[in-house]
Amino acid sequence: MQAIPLVETGAAEAFGLGDCEIAQACASHGGEARHTQTVSAWLGKLGLGPDDLECGTHWPMHDETTRAMAAAGETPCPIHNNCSGKHCGFLTTAVHMGEKTKGYVRFEHPVQQRILGVLEAMCGIDLGKAPRGIDGCAIPTIAIPLENMAYGMARFGAPDDLSPGRAAACRRIAAAVAAEPFMVAGSGRYCSEVMAVTGRSVLLKTGAEGVFCAAIPDYGLGVALKCDDGATRAAEVMMSAVLRHIGVLTDDMETKLARRIVMPLENRNGTHVGDVRASDIFTE
Amino acid sequence: MQAIPLVETGAAEAFGLGDCEIAQACASHGGEARHTQTVSAWLGKLGLGPDDLECGTHWPMHDETTRAMAAAGETPCPIHNNCSGKHCGFLTTAVHMGEKTKGYVRFEHPVQQRILGVLEAMCGIDLGKAPRGIDGCAIPTIAIPLENMAYGMARFGAPDDLSPGRAAACRRIAAAVAAEPFMVAGSGRYCSEVMAVTGRSVLLKTGAEGVFCAAIPDYGLGVALKCDDGATRAAEVMMSAVLRHIGVLTDDMETKLARRIVMPLENRNGTHVGDVRASDIFTE
Repeated sequence: MQAIPLVETGAAEAFGLGDCEIAQACASHGGEARHTQTVSAWLGKLGLGPDDLECGTHWPMHDETTRAMAAAGETPCPIHNNCSGKHCGFLTTAVHMGEKTKGYVRFEHPVQQRILGVLEAMCGIDLGKAPRGIDGCAIPTIAIPLENMAYGMARFGAPDDLSPGRAAACRRIAAAVAAEPFMVAGSGRYCSEVMAVTGRSVLLKTGAEGVFCAAIPDYGLGVALKCDDGATRAAEVMMSAVLRHIGVLTDDMETKLARRIVMPLENRNGTHVGDVRASDIFTE
Repeated sequence: MQAIPLVETGAAEAFGLGDCEIAQACASHGGEARHTQTVSAWLGKLGLGPDDLECGTHWPMHDETTRAMAAAGETPCPIHNNCSGKHCGFLTTAVHMGEKTKGYVRFEHPVQQRILGVLEAMCGIDLGKAPRGIDGCAIPTIAIPLENMAYGMARFGAPDDLSPGRAAACRRIAAAVAAEPFMVAGSGRYCSEVMAVTGRSVLLKTGAEGVFCAAIPDYGLGVALKCDDGATRAAEVMMSAVLRHIGVLTDDMETKLARRIVMPLENRNGTHVGDVRASDIFTE
C-alpha cells in the first residue's frame, strides 16, 4: 500500500520503472546483488545517490552477502538497508511531484501524508489520531487494527470497487510483485518463495514484530495476522495455515511449499529435532 | 549446573583448567578471538581437536568477528559454535573418567547421565520421565519447571547445605564466571556486562527461548524466568527488573547498567525511537 502513490501519481511511469523497481518499492529485501544493483540504478535515474536515502545503514540481512562483502573489503551504505527499495519509491514520488526530497521520511512530509491518506482509504479507518511511532527505517509506523489491514489487503488484491486510477495502481503493483517475487525479499525468504509458487493467486508481505499480510485476489480476500510472540518464525507457518484453510493452495503448491507449511527445525549438526506446525485449530 | 561434573569429578583440576576454561564451560559465547583461542588450547590439553566437538558449526554470533573471519578468508568450525566451551567441559569429564568421547552428546552417554543426576539433585525434581528434546548443539534439553530451576540456582549460589564436594564445585564455578565474565558471553552481551559490574553478587546466564537464570549468593536466592515471547530482548530487561526488586543492585551498579534496566531502541539512523522497560508490576 505504501507503493500505491508511486504508481498512482504517475511517478513510476514518468521514470520508466519496471516490475523490478515496483516490486522493490514493496520490499524488505536481503541486500543481495540483484537488489542493490536495482536500487543503485534506480537512484541514478532520479539523479540521486545513496546519501539521499534516509533509511539508515545496516549490513545486508542476507548473511552470505554480508560475508562476501566483508571478504571483498566492502562496507554497507543505505542501499543495503532492507527498506531501500521502499525509500526509492518515496524519493521517486517526491521528485515527480516537485517536492523537496530532504526529510521525506517525516510524518509531515507530503510523501508520508499521501501514504497516510492511502492507508486510511484502503483500510477504511481514520488514522489522524492513531498511535504512531518511528520505524527502524525512520518513516512513520502507524497502528492499524488487523481487521482494517485485512480489509485494505482485500481491496488491494481485488480493486474493482476503487477509483480507476487507484485500481490501476493496485493492479500494476500486484503484477510487479507476482512477476519479480525475488525482489520483494530474496534467497530463502518466505515471501519470495511462496509467491514464486503461487504466482498472482497469493500476494503477501512480511512485517516487523510478527505481522504478516496477504491478498488473495481471486477470492476477494485479505489476510492480516500478528503472531503474539512478535517473531517471524511462527507467523510464516500461521500464514501457510491460513492460506491452506482458505483453499487457495493447490495440491501441487502444497507439495512445493511443504517446508513452509510444516517448518523443520534442525540443530547445528543438521539433525532434524522438531517442527514448527500450526495446531489443528482449523480442522478440529 | 552442566559444568558441575567437570569440577566435581576432579577433571578440571587434573587438566589444570583455570577461570577462563571453567567460565567457558558455562558459556554461550560469541566466538570472539579470546573465546576460540581458549577452546582451541583446551582441546589441545585433552589431545583432541575440533572434530571431537559434536556441537556442530555456525558462524560466530558476534557479527564483527564473523565479518573479520570472512575478510580473512576463514570459515567456521565447531570451535566457533557458541556452546563449544560447554562441550569442551563434557569432553574433559569423559576423558578424565575414561569414557569413550564419541557420542558424548547422547542422552545415554555417562556425561549426559551425570548432568541429569546433577540437575535432579540441584533442582529437587525427578527428571527420569521429564519431556526432553535435542538442543541446537545436539545435547539433551530437558523440561524443568521454573521454580525448580530457581531452586537449583539458589543452591548453586549458596551451596552450604550441599555435600562438601558439590559445594566446592559450585564455589569454584561461581568464582570462575565472576572472574571471567567475558568468557561466558562476550562483547556487548548482557551476561558479561552485568557480571562485570556485579562481580560475585549476581551470577547469571541466558538460555534459549527467553529463559534467563540467576543466583544471588548473599541472599541465598535463585531466579528463573522465561519471557512468553521466547526472545532474549525483553527477558534481559525482566532480569534487570527482578534484580532491582530483590535489591541486590547498588546505586552505582544501577547507574552503570542503566541501558540494561531501560533498554533504548534506536533505528538504523541511530535515532532513539523507544525503550524496552519493565512495567511497574513490582512498584505499583
